[in-house]
Amino acid sequence: MKEVKAYAAHAAEKDLEPHAISRREPGPEDVEIEILYCGVCHSDIHTARNEWGGTRYPVVPGHEIVGKITRTGEAVTRFKEGETVGVGCFVDSCGHCENCEEDQEQYCLNGVTATYNSPSRVEKEIHTFGGYSTHIVVKEDFVLKISDKLPLHAVAPLLCAGITTYSPLRFWNVKKGDKVGVVGLGGLGHMAVKLASSMGAEVTMLSRSPEKEKDAEDLGAAHFELTTSEENVKKLAGTFNLIINTVSAQHDYNQYMKMLKTNGVMVLLGIPPEPSAVHAGPLITSRRSLVGSLVGGIRETQEMLDYCAEHDIVSEVEMINIDQVNEAYERTLNSDVRYRFVIDMKSLKDKN
Amino acid sequence: MKEVKAYAAHAAEKDLEPHAISRREPGPEDVEIEILYCGVCHSDIHTARNEWGGTRYPVVPGHEIVGKITRTGEAVTRFKEGETVGVGCFVDSCGHCENCEEDQEQYCLNGVTATYNSPSRVEKEIHTFGGYSTHIVVKEDFVLKISDKLPLHAVAPLLCAGITTYSPLRFWNVKKGDKVGVVGLGGLGHMAVKLASSMGAEVTMLSRSPEKEKDAEDLGAAHFELTTSEENVKKLAGTFNLIINTVSAQHDYNQYMKMLKTNGVMVLLGIPPEPSAVHAGPLITSRRSLVGSLVGGIRETQEMLDYCAEHDIVSEVEMINIDQVNEAYERTLNSDVRYRFVIDMKSLKDKN
Repeated sequence: MKEVKAYAAHAAEKDLEPHAISRREPGPEDVEIEILYCGVCHSDIHTARNEWGGTRYPVVPGHEIVGKITRTGEAVTRFKEGETVGVGCFVDSCGHCENCEEDQEQYCLNGVTATYNSPSRVEKEIHTFGGYSTHIVVKEDFVLKISDKLPLHAVAPLLCAGITTYSPLRFWNVKKGDKVGVVGLGGLGHMAVKLASSMGAEVTMLSRSPEKEKDAEDLGAAHFELTTSEENVKKLAGTFNLIINTVSAQHDYNQYMKMLKTNGVMVLLGIPPEPSAVHAGPLITSRRSLVGSLVGGIRETQEMLDYCAEHDIVSEVEMINIDQVNEAYERTLNSDVRYRFVIDMKSLKDKN
Repeated sequence: MKEVKAYAAHAAEKDLEPHAISRREPGPEDVEIEILYCGVCHSDIHTARNEWGGTRYPVVPGHEIVGKITRTGEAVTRFKEGETVGVGCFVDSCGHCENCEEDQEQYCLNGVTATYNSPSRVEKEIHTFGGYSTHIVVKEDFVLKISDKLPLHAVAPLLCAGITTYSPLRFWNVKKGDKVGVVGLGGLGHMAVKLASSMGAEVTMLSRSPEKEKDAEDLGAAHFELTTSEENVKKLAGTFNLIINTVSAQHDYNQYMKMLKTNGVMVLLGIPPEPSAVHAGPLITSRRSLVGSLVGGIRETQEMLDYCAEHDIVSEVEMINIDQVNEAYERTLNSDVRYRFVIDMKSLKDKN
């Protein structure tokens, strides 16, 4: 066991603060990673504040991790010391259910082990601690290779925001010329715009905020449409093959469903606090689908990282030090970030 | 023009009654059909009573039509006098939109011409009249060939109830060993059970009525589960590849969504009066889909009829005379029919 520095919340209503945690000695199949950067995801805030229920305190959030291998277990074959690697939203799964066998560990039928706030499969009576810390120890099978070609701090958010948008674009087979709508321009939305347009789709940003138009276009959107205008909404009927809906605030799905073509699909990535009323009519009359999607498996996450390296795609980030994380939470809640906070973990390492 | 006997409703609150309508002389591409049988679909009732709005009176319902060709236009190539044919839910479409070009006329982007209560594309200022009449004139491209191998009166409901359940089973690729749930055992539900089990699926009837168990099993369901029991509902979590939901009364979708496996799909075929509240969570955590489906195109309807002839599949019907149709409406509303009323049109032909 090794004691390492971390930042943790001790209760729903408390700020995150310095907290020492223990990381296990690397087992035969483990690697130890020194964390260089960790993104700040909205899920971190939901969990720190117990907004989804079930938070185990103290909680160390963080699942957009980029770092360097510092030690490897004796049976590790894919990694060596000094290599640049990533860890995403989960660090373990059962390995034998039908979803794990199909490289869809995120849907593990026996429960995926999330990077933080999950019972550990390795250490009894321990729950997992995430990336707001200087080191993490992870089974090599759940570690991703990261090209040194891209700026590493801006790669971190790919591990959640990147794969969460990449996976549905692939699963629903977005291709050149497809019309893709993106609802919400935040951490997920800005990656959806970048990725979908890189795949050749004609991307429309659907937004309630006129001030986001320039950014949307800079990110690759071909069009920007205000959904506060009823006229616009009507005009867009039957337009899109796919809509990526990143909004987790309460909102009306029906106006977007009607914007889908026949056989069109709207993918939900955010979970609003309450269920949303859905009209069966627009689903039936044009065989439209309302679906959801959750991150991606390890194989697909690696594919996404390789794709991003090849296409020079990273996240737009604002760097912070660890002691700015509570302020960053507030700014994230106010959508006051373009488009992801990333913690420079040197600031934690160097902290007294 | 030819005057023919029909049964029509003249207002939402009025019973259907005898009414003479005009049928056009067959144009070059038309066939004239003497109607032998016509099924009674729930949509007939919704339309006769203007429950969906937009009913044009007088309305002659009926879109599950089986009959014999009596005359053919000079350019007709596929049919000849005396042949047994069917007409389903629509009789025309634009023919050139991307959906029509892909044999999905039911989703015609310029508006499919429904068999009744639609503006005619052929006759100006006329709306279409359906199958509760002795004759109908239809473009040959919208007429189906029917094998004489099956009892014709029991084939009639295949033209709506059959294709409405067959199409989603094919579109979502149901195959041997798949687990399929069917919600609601009525006109559509009983066809869904027959068709899905004929395709090799293991079918579970999901019902609130214990008295339907024996029928469900006789129709081909391997299992019967009461959804009024919370214990049953819990037990069924993660069970089905596909659920065919035929219920058009207001009901909760969420209990069924959780019964789907990862990547599972629930297909809505009925439109409840009000939208239903849908939780995003079960969609996201297992990439489940909530979708809708509307009848099928002409090509697929012919495929379904051929499939049914090959597999000896017909509807379970209760035969009525035309003057019993109002009573049949009431009994349909009370689910007091096993499982489709079919009007013997001889009773209209012979009526004074």
